Amino acid sequence: MKAEYINPFVSAAAEVFSTMLQCELTRGKLTIGNGAQPTMDISGIIGLSGRATGTVVLSLDRAVALSATEILLSQKCTTIDGDVIDAVGELTNMVAGRAKAGLEHLAMSLALPTVITGKNHVISFGSATQTLAIPFTCEWGGLVLEVGLVEEAEVAPAELAAASMA
Amino acid sequence: MKAEYINPFVSAAAEVFSTMLQCELTRGKLTIGNGAQPTMDISGIIGLSGRATGTVVLSLDRAVALSATEILLSQKCTTIDGDVIDAVGELTNMVAGRAKAGLEHLAMSLALPTVITGKNHVISFGSATQTLAIPFTCEWGGLVLEVGLVEEAEVAPAELAAASMA
Repeated sequence: MKAEYINPFVSAAAEVFSTMLQCELTRGKLTIGNGAQPTMDISGIIGLSGRATGTVVLSLDRAVALSATEILLSQKCTTIDGDVIDAVGELTNMVAGRAKAGLEHLAMSLALPTVITGKNHVISFGSATQTLAIPFTCEWGGLVLEVGLVEEAEVAPAELAAASMA
Repeated sequence: MKAEYINPFVSAAAEVFSTMLQCELTRGKLTIGNGAQPTMDISGIIGLSGRATGTVVLSLDRAVALSATEILLSQKCTTIDGDVIDAVGELTNMVAGRAKAGLEHLAMSLALPTVITGKNHVISFGSATQTLAIPFTCEWGGLVLEVGLVEEAEVAPAELAAASMA
């Protein structure tokens, strides 16, 4: 994954939080990973495909997820329920949607978001995919955005394995 | 999601397990869901996008994940490690890849798989997405395949929300 491809995702996260939640994000240090990321209490996952194939994970502290949902729904939230899950899925969708506009040459479209809950869940991209992760802090707590993107030519092995069975 | 769209995924799972793992699956009763599915010890998730937008979750008993990896790698596996995570990601990729060939009119392409581990993790599609889930049993234990697919016209609200911010 090209390092510069992370930038549209970082800008997208900052813009979505600022515009939709009136919450300013402070970014931390980029880390390169390819295995399990240290996830937080709730994570949104969304796939991207086109001239590159990827997945975006937005993992939030419980307090960030609850506060974000409160603002989106204008109602108090105290537990991770269906509303919080919907809100985290929608935030993940918005971050990925905005980021793909900044990577127009990859002509990617979004899959459906899913949301993972459960203490100590771990999300792995598999050993073959290099990912870039950016931690952020905000007034409510921490969040991490992790992105794995593989450009078309690099996709060959998995696609070939699937195709060879068809 | 049209009920008949689940069939290519069911056939794909049976074929992948039979061809790659020499393991015959017995299917259980289809359930309709739109919330959290009862997940097992390890789950592969992969996004699909094209004329429909979707996500596929393949959730496996620990014993099924370990036995499948043993066959794929021809080596004994006793814990859920990086090899097992890679194997579950690859199985999820193969099932989705084969299924999309049976849904050619939807012109979908695959995103990158991710794999979720952690006792009691829950994977939710959000309240707006109806999903279909099929449980299977095999000689090693149980697995569940859950699919959510939204056809193009239905995607409008989320895409519009993302687009209106760009």
